[in-house]
Amino acid sequence: MKIVPLGGLGDIGRNMMAVEYDGEMVVVDAGVLFPDEGMPAGIDFAIPNFSYLRDNRHKLIAVVITHGHEDHIGALPYLLSEFDVPVYASRLTHGLITVKLRERGLLKDARLNVVEPHSPFNIGGFRCEFFRVCHSIPDAMGIALGTPLGHVVHTGDFKIDHTPADGKSTDFSVLSRLASEGVLLLMSDSTYAEVEGYTESEQVVGEALERAIGQASGRVMVATFASLISRVQQVTTAAIAHGRKVAVVGRSMMNNVNMAKSMGYLDIPEGTLVSLSEARKLPLEETVIIATGSQGEPTSALVRIANGEHPDIEIVPGDTVIISASPIPGNETLVSNTINNLFRQGASVLYSRVAMVHVHGHASREELKMMLSLAKPKFFVPVHGEYRHLFTHAALAQSMGVPPENTFVLEDGDVLELDGESGKVVDKINAGHVFVDGRRMWEGASRIHDERRRLARDGIVTAIVTLSERDNSLLKPPGLYSSGFLGLEESQDLFEKTSKVVAGSLEQDGARALGLDQVKARVTGTVSDFLFKETRRRPTVITVVERI
Amino acid sequence: MKIVPLGGLGDIGRNMMAVEYDGEMVVVDAGVLFPDEGMPAGIDFAIPNFSYLRDNRHKLIAVVITHGHEDHIGALPYLLSEFDVPVYASRLTHGLITVKLRERGLLKDARLNVVEPHSPFNIGGFRCEFFRVCHSIPDAMGIALGTPLGHVVHTGDFKIDHTPADGKSTDFSVLSRLASEGVLLLMSDSTYAEVEGYTESEQVVGEALERAIGQASGRVMVATFASLISRVQQVTTAAIAHGRKVAVVGRSMMNNVNMAKSMGYLDIPEGTLVSLSEARKLPLEETVIIATGSQGEPTSALVRIANGEHPDIEIVPGDTVIISASPIPGNETLVSNTINNLFRQGASVLYSRVAMVHVHGHASREELKMMLSLAKPKFFVPVHGEYRHLFTHAALAQSMGVPPENTFVLEDGDVLELDGESGKVVDKINAGHVFVDGRRMWEGASRIHDERRRLARDGIVTAIVTLSERDNSLLKPPGLYSSGFLGLEESQDLFEKTSKVVAGSLEQDGARALGLDQVKARVTGTVSDFLFKETRRRPTVITVVERI
Repeated sequence: MKIVPLGGLGDIGRNMMAVEYDGEMVVVDAGVLFPDEGMPAGIDFAIPNFSYLRDNRHKLIAVVITHGHEDHIGALPYLLSEFDVPVYASRLTHGLITVKLRERGLLKDARLNVVEPHSPFNIGGFRCEFFRVCHSIPDAMGIALGTPLGHVVHTGDFKIDHTPADGKSTDFSVLSRLASEGVLLLMSDSTYAEVEGYTESEQVVGEALERAIGQASGRVMVATFASLISRVQQVTTAAIAHGRKVAVVGRSMMNNVNMAKSMGYLDIPEGTLVSLSEARKLPLEETVIIATGSQGEPTSALVRIANGEHPDIEIVPGDTVIISASPIPGNETLVSNTINNLFRQGASVLYSRVAMVHVHGHASREELKMMLSLAKPKFFVPVHGEYRHLFTHAALAQSMGVPPENTFVLEDGDVLELDGESGKVVDKINAGHVFVDGRRMWEGASRIHDERRRLARDGIVTAIVTLSERDNSLLKPPGLYSSGFLGLEESQDLFEKTSKVVAGSLEQDGARALGLDQVKARVTGTVSDFLFKETRRRPTVITVVERI
Repeated sequence: MKIVPLGGLGDIGRNMMAVEYDGEMVVVDAGVLFPDEGMPAGIDFAIPNFSYLRDNRHKLIAVVITHGHEDHIGALPYLLSEFDVPVYASRLTHGLITVKLRERGLLKDARLNVVEPHSPFNIGGFRCEFFRVCHSIPDAMGIALGTPLGHVVHTGDFKIDHTPADGKSTDFSVLSRLASEGVLLLMSDSTYAEVEGYTESEQVVGEALERAIGQASGRVMVATFASLISRVQQVTTAAIAHGRKVAVVGRSMMNNVNMAKSMGYLDIPEGTLVSLSEARKLPLEETVIIATGSQGEPTSALVRIANGEHPDIEIVPGDTVIISASPIPGNETLVSNTINNLFRQGASVLYSRVAMVHVHGHASREELKMMLSLAKPKFFVPVHGEYRHLFTHAALAQSMGVPPENTFVLEDGDVLELDGESGKVVDKINAGHVFVDGRRMWEGASRIHDERRRLARDGIVTAIVTLSERDNSLLKPPGLYSSGFLGLEESQDLFEKTSKVVAGSLEQDGARALGLDQVKARVTGTVSDFLFKETRRRPTVITVVERI
């Protein structure tokens, strides 16, 4: 058996894992990774590298999906445009995938299958079973792939919540049965492997929301993730309890609420949901607004409200804003600025640092131990998280009795080979980021992005030198043009001086005999050094030599 | 009396506060703010805006400094090159200022005064007294400015620690006496105003470090802030207890340790400190290395070690690395990457999320209440922190009995006027960021930085069009040059096409009759639209028209 992480190890997100046995390969999840500081500026997102799938195209028999978050389904459109392979997913996840593929015109040719938990089925030689786990989206699943060597169990993202918002707990009974049949390998969510204890139950959040909405004297706005359907349910339930109507603002939030409602994942009595314009006619203390923007996204409803730039909603004293989410790493500053601006506008603001209005969706250490105890795996591979989280989770598994030689902290591209007795990393294949930027895709770091970083730091100066084709003499003073370097006023004088310095250097001893490349190099060097001397900055310099 | 924040309200850092009474003005602190995501790329740091000081130059009689961190002293070189004004600071702070001014050649003309705590002195009509507070640097002070209206008390950055590393606690007795004499206004540190309870004592860290060093089987490396002298003391004490020698790595760390040792702020027996080359000759289990890099700074010792790029130190299995610091907001990703890489190199890594190897230097809510109880102020102005922290601190003060109308959440530039009875914001003066970028300084946002942001996102394309002066006919095909846009190979084809499109557009109906600006606009538009159509990206386009 081979286990090959193709994306997502060493990152939070962009998950994809290949499981191979007897010439057949099943891929678990196909997610995107959103840009962070470590990634080049200007990219839209990253997807896993499909090279290994291309090389093993004949083996690929299915994609199974744990849940409907973007970092688990976002790369499906890319995968399915290249590989004609069936996709298996739970009901809500299937709904979200359908929406995504329809937008891209890929739905018609896709082979999508809805899987019910607790109902094993065959994928080639694998006996596949989905089992419920709790996470911050409904219908999240762990996945077991049965093989003659034993079960390969992938938890997906999970936590253990005995009182989740939708009443559907992580399924211990299936896990116990799988353990009794023999779990060869457990791959388990490591995101919160550093955090002691238990993740708080959603029930606590429900109670906090109910209290906050009950105590609010005016309008209440709640910002959360568009995919966090259970939170929308909790807010709506609290609103109803306190005689308020609910308006949903923001396109993605509205789409998700409508979809979840029509599929039965939201239980909202007729007459509770109103449009924003209806809500605006109601007394403030009878309304709750649910909006996007919990991550401080600049174009979201909440951020425009916080900046006083929303066309329809203006903060008035007495408003309560609840940020029912925690910042994804990298978004801390955006979220903090949004909170600051809401306070400035006069709102009372509740957020997870000061009130229990959010819990995240990942297991803490005691829950991870519980998973290990239930699954009793022979081999262990921590998944989902940065290297530090994987390493810490592996150490936890060892402390629970998994032998160190059966514990593997893999990185993308490591090929782990397992037989029933022992395991070994036998190869390293081409995996890792593929960046998507408009219509372009490329692997790994790129010269372009070094250039962009440099442009962002010091801007650019273009020097144009027009020479006579006959004798390389200057036909006119060198011209200098810049972007992101100095203001127009400041640069005028400086560029006049620079032009003279460049002209001087080209009229020096023997410069007329220089070849084109030598002229270019000399001008670039002269401009760069002179500007550094004058400003202590090193803008990018492009030299264009025109010969007429 | 006037209170005017000139920098640092609404930010963590870059503090500066003017206190004015009877025609005399004292400034508290003069700090820098280091770049974060919200600030333009390429700047070095921001200093407070001195406009108000320039307008009131005749009133300015002194600068008093609470402690020696950069966000409290970093702007002094700028301030003192413009204003000839005496500076008052505690002994260690004075030492740090001296080093800073000497580097800039400003020491000779500076009028620096060392202040002992508990020893009131006069600054003009103000009766000034420094009192000890605990913070993450020795000799941190709160400052009281006595006036006929009562005391103005500024806490500086502080926490209340009954067992600090240097044994010097926050001075309750002075605070009680000031309260009994009458505190008109308290300005108090708000950084952790959202956090319930008490900040843990340094003693806990000392014990954790001692335990970690005692249990380590091999070499120990500790990374912390260069200014966190008390942490160096704790590490050294633990090292001695376990028979280890200590080597200090990194220029700023070495300078600070030497300075603190010579001034008596570090108590290290002869023979404990060794050079790195001496340490490398010792058995691994007999060494501790103290290094910079706790914030993941790319050129720091720890980061080079983590990346396997340090010339003298390589991680070997058995090494323990302790990150005795928490990430400053904005540095989370850098720190996390460093931890990941240390794990990859085979080190065992301890950091504040998994072990008590660091506590920060700011008061939590119970300590803030204590300060309010001790000082019993008539008026309250929260300082140090983002707006959300100031707002939350103000609400806390109100819950402690300060009347809402006596509580002021100020922003930079607000002029608060107080008499003995009431207060009011009477004006808004020019304050806020002044960005320092090499030798340039400028206020507020800048077009240059919008340009840089755009360059970073999509790169730049320069189009060169060479026209005949006579009839505007094209003398050669338009040339296109780029940086940060596409790779050379990819762009060649595209730019050939673009050139033809531009040429076509310039040969169209009537184009020859266009003026220079019109030609430019047409070329820029044509290039921009064509590239967007082909690539879905919008690089900056600069058009240069040469007429020969």
